[in-house]
Amino acid sequence: MSIDVLKTIGDTLEARREASPQSSYVASLFHKGEDAILKKVAEEAAETLMASKDKDKLHLVREVADLWFHSMVLLTYHGLRAEDVLMELKRREGISGIDEKASRTPTA
Amino acid sequence: MSIDVLKTIGDTLEARREASPQSSYVASLFHKGEDAILKKVAEEAAETLMASKDKDKLHLVREVADLWFHSMVLLTYHGLRAEDVLMELKRREGISGIDEKASRTPTA
Amino acid sequence: MSIDVLKTIGDTLEARREASPQSSYVASLFHKGEDAILKKVAEEAAETLMASKDKDKLHLVREVADLWFHSMVLLTYHGLRAEDVLMELKRREGISGIDEKASRTPTA
Amino acid sequence: MSIDVLKTIGDTLEARREASPQSSYVASLFHKGEDAILKKVAEEAAETLMASKDKDKLHLVREVADLWFHSMVLLTYHGLRAEDVLMELKRREGISGIDEKASRTPTA
Repeated sequence: MSIDVLKTIGDTLEARREASPQSSYVASLFHKGEDAILKKVAEEAAETLMASKDKDKLHLVREVADLWFHSMVLLTYHGLRAEDVLMELKRREGISGIDEKASRTPTA
Repeated sequence: MSIDVLKTIGDTLEARREASPQSSYVASLFHKGEDAILKKVAEEAAETLMASKDKDKLHLVREVADLWFHSMVLLTYHGLRAEDVLMELKRREGISGIDEKASRTPTA
Repeated sequence: MSIDVLKTIGDTLEARREASPQSSYVASLFHKGEDAILKKVAEEAAETLMASKDKDKLHLVREVADLWFHSMVLLTYHGLRAEDVLMELKRREGISGIDEKASRTPTA
Repeated sequence: MSIDVLKTIGDTLEARREASPQSSYVASLFHKGEDAILKKVAEEAAETLMASKDKDKLHLVREVADLWFHSMVLLTYHGLRAEDVLMELKRREGISGIDEKASRTPTA
């Protein structure tokens, strides 16, 4: 399921990157440029903190969704995809697995 | 692929939530508590901004990976999962699809 | 000079705390409440980061001014003043002075 | 009082800018460079948010002091001073005063 939704969002973001600023919220954000996108990432991170402090789980899920979504807008701005982030996370899982195995071996 | 890596990370995070603080970085972070996790989320958001301003794509992918990873630590702290965030994103895609279709139909 | 400007701003903020939301930007911000003020603090911190990375000194001064101003809105919201922050900074200067003197004395 | 403490801190920061990284926390921070300073600004902004949400006034004053202090480290890094920020705030007070007077005059 996740691969589908992140891939679909990535495809939509790429399509809107060159669309008219009037056509959608995201097209307008791309048109405003990097600093406008970064402000949104910072704002959603701040709102994630506030939702967590409020112990409001429903709100927290929405804010993390906003944070991930605007991270993906930023990735698209730089010609990158969520898949690049997932590969990096996958790579670390692998390394971490190796590290942990190694740490159990006195000769490592 | 993504469903696998996010699910695997979620399972690992849940397992480490109750582990000894000495056993791993994540177990230590859970033990320090909510504010320590929130500081990491804020720090990774700031580093995402800096990597973007530096136009360093490799660094940007790593920082967004850090941001998403620590968001997942926060979700786990609150008994939530990345799957909840992906469902929220999926739900919006659906609404957005309907909205767009509606906006094309004068009778909507 | 600084004591005057920070004191004047503090007095103005206190006066606007109870004013009609329509009367000014700050009165409207107080009316929206704590989360709206915190979002502005986070936003100005993010813009400070961006101005620094842009090596734009004029912009940086403006963003730090925005950050300090909105910190003062937050202090006022909690019934506090810039003077409380300055006293805390003064207190640390004192401790730091003592620490440094002590560190120069072998018998300390 | 404030002019004294902000001026004293500014003088101290300038002196430590070129000092050995081992000599103090601030000298070490300058030596690490811009990104390390920006991370501290972001971290203190996040801790200000958390202290506010915790309704912990004493903690809030300390975190705003940390935020202002690290803003001053950043200003010093760029060859600027708190006095530049205070002048910007003073300038706005002036403009705002004029604006408000103008808004009361129908012919303005």
